[in-house]
Amino acid sequence: MARLRSRRAKPSTPIITLLTDFGDRDGYVASMKGVLATHAPEVTVVDICHAVAPQDLLHAGVVWSAAIPYFPPGCVHVGVVDPGVGSARRILAVEVCDSIFLVPDNGLVGYVARREEIVRVIEVRERRFFLEAVSTTFHGRDIFAPVAARLALGLHPAKLGPAVDDFELRSLPTSSRRTVCADPFGVEETGEVIDVDTFGNITTNLRPSPGRRFVRLKIADFESDRLATTYSDVAVGESLVLVGSTGFLEIAVRGGSAGFQLGVQVGADVRVEWEGGS
Amino acid sequence: MARLRSRRAKPSTPIITLLTDFGDRDGYVASMKGVLATHAPEVTVVDICHAVAPQDLLHAGVVWSAAIPYFPPGCVHVGVVDPGVGSARRILAVEVCDSIFLVPDNGLVGYVARREEIVRVIEVRERRFFLEAVSTTFHGRDIFAPVAARLALGLHPAKLGPAVDDFELRSLPTSSRRTVCADPFGVEETGEVIDVDTFGNITTNLRPSPGRRFVRLKIADFESDRLATTYSDVAVGESLVLVGSTGFLEIAVRGGSAGFQLGVQVGADVRVEWEGGS
Amino acid sequence: MARLRSRRAKPSTPIITLLTDFGDRDGYVASMKGVLATHAPEVTVVDICHAVAPQDLLHAGVVWSAAIPYFPPGCVHVGVVDPGVGSARRILAVEVCDSIFLVPDNGLVGYVARREEIVRVIEVRERRFFLEAVSTTFHGRDIFAPVAARLALGLHPAKLGPAVDDFELRSLPTSSRRTVCADPFGVEETGEVIDVDTFGNITTNLRPSPGRRFVRLKIADFESDRLATTYSDVAVGESLVLVGSTGFLEIAVRGGSAGFQLGVQVGADVRVEWEGGS
Repeated sequence: MARLRSRRAKPSTPIITLLTDFGDRDGYVASMKGVLATHAPEVTVVDICHAVAPQDLLHAGVVWSAAIPYFPPGCVHVGVVDPGVGSARRILAVEVCDSIFLVPDNGLVGYVARREEIVRVIEVRERRFFLEAVSTTFHGRDIFAPVAARLALGLHPAKLGPAVDDFELRSLPTSSRRTVCADPFGVEETGEVIDVDTFGNITTNLRPSPGRRFVRLKIADFESDRLATTYSDVAVGESLVLVGSTGFLEIAVRGGSAGFQLGVQVGADVRVEWEGGS
Repeated sequence: MARLRSRRAKPSTPIITLLTDFGDRDGYVASMKGVLATHAPEVTVVDICHAVAPQDLLHAGVVWSAAIPYFPPGCVHVGVVDPGVGSARRILAVEVCDSIFLVPDNGLVGYVARREEIVRVIEVRERRFFLEAVSTTFHGRDIFAPVAARLALGLHPAKLGPAVDDFELRSLPTSSRRTVCADPFGVEETGEVIDVDTFGNITTNLRPSPGRRFVRLKIADFESDRLATTYSDVAVGESLVLVGSTGFLEIAVRGGSAGFQLGVQVGADVRVEWEGGS
Repeated sequence: MARLRSRRAKPSTPIITLLTDFGDRDGYVASMKGVLATHAPEVTVVDICHAVAPQDLLHAGVVWSAAIPYFPPGCVHVGVVDPGVGSARRILAVEVCDSIFLVPDNGLVGYVARREEIVRVIEVRERRFFLEAVSTTFHGRDIFAPVAARLALGLHPAKLGPAVDDFELRSLPTSSRRTVCADPFGVEETGEVIDVDTFGNITTNLRPSPGRRFVRLKIADFESDRLATTYSDVAVGESLVLVGSTGFLEIAVRGGSAGFQLGVQVGADVRVEWEGGS
């Protein structure tokens, strides 16, 4: 309760963020904002993204991992990408350190919260915090929004239902490694593309680590033995490999779209050779 | 005036909502927000939707009917979907209960306000509340925005111009019915598709009513004699009929797009058979 | 400093506006908003546009020129359309009258600020106002956002680095003229299309001026000798020439898309004949 009081005492307006796959041509996001404005008029609502591909949890996870680390403590982060809406899947309030995620129990929160950071997971069950009429197909409006409003105003998550510990946590696809050379110690790591962004930059699930040196990356017909520092290291129209703004290896084309130029989509194989490290 | 004082006395920030067909790639919405920030800096602006198909009043109406009922009282709802911009069509401030709609006189407000709910309709004429230079093609910025700012700050609508009662009110297309069976009493209702949303869910203008039982729905090549409760009632990839989150019969495909799968667009015929009721 | 104090004394919340080419499907804009919420929680953030075509400075400039003039004084306008991200291009804080633009040194600010209006240009160098870890590819999040937050809270731009005067200022493409008739004095002006908007309206870089009379406009296969006042001057489906809401000559189709109907894109030639003036 000490934690809660301190949250309430924050001088600034509480923040609710919204991530959905609702797109921009319907009234769905707006109806959630109407509920938020009704129940928590003084809260600031920030849109993370509503253009997640329908029910694409990986896309949602990539967006959240890019954005969430930059928000201040005390936020309520609502994620409604929910292939199981209307089924028996549960809704969870997941507390991590000083923020709360409100999510379907489909693993989405795993992209931004590791198990060891999670303080408490509550199954959201208390219907008195829901809208009076709960539809079977739009829990974002009827459950997530009014509950998020209450959490942002300081309601303790434990008031929402029982603690649970059998929840799902997705994570980025893992990579596999095999030793390719003993001396100097060399490793080939096989990963995959986890995102192709607006600019056509290709994000992989592979990241550098201290003590190992980049030797070579192969993806589709492209191969490079140089880890660039930034786009301007190559000429306009040329491909390059660099560490992107979220820490992963990215393949980009300066002034162009790598996704288009290399014909690469999410899920495509990437192979990287490292030297040193382990 | 009592009403106004009570609106002013509300502890929370007044809200202006915006619905337009201005899209996301131009500076039009932002210029309206600049005007709002200039004239009513403390007001909260909420975007309902700016991706309404150009001049598509039905689309705008469907979005508004999904969202508006969830907003708190005291809002000023601005709708600029306006095939008649620059013509002699009037601009109206429409008061309903505790909210105000600011709209072109093209019937749009009829989707969210029935005639009997309307308290007062004012023709917006007082140029002293407009921007100094009023363009012929962008009334959203030059008239709607500054007038909405004043209304949100408590200006009584009657200050804007004369009351009128010959305004237009559109409504959803009506359905037609014919008796198909005397005992048990059976009715066939013919309606149409009023929306296909981001997910490809097909919304019709038909709704269940107490006392009648769903027998069968036909649309394009699809037919079903089962009214599902939610998406998970069928297998992934299968079509179903259910009551959607706005109360209308919807056709959906679990984990897919019904609009695409059935090849159905707005305006398509739907036939439903009911038993009982009238 | 007097100016700054007065900015601080404003009763209303400071405003930061955002213009980027980041699109809507990634977490980039949201990560900037997270940084802003962290460093300036009480500031209002207004999205100008995030759908600028990748690295398209002219598009960004057209959007900014439509929107910026309608914002109140005291704003911090952030523009991150930045083909040179990661190169040695500088980041500038550009003060004009009572607002500040935070931009890459790529000329973008020239579309909204003429040289004679600029009070001061500061090269943003002081790393203590940046995020601790500055990536090479996402200065919007790591430099622009935290610096904008500080400026909105009243930091004097001069604290950010040295004044510079060798900055770049783009402007709209210029038109060329030739005399076509001595008496009455007639001029043919050749310009180009600078934008085709959501509705398909074609904006040119040509504007009327006092004392000269519109005679004729030619673009692609369309020609008109009439300057209409507004869309309803012609029948639905017909093309017209008018002065658009930003003061430039526009070609529109009532109830349709002129860009599509005339097959015209940005950069296309336009020729206008004027009579009188100079």
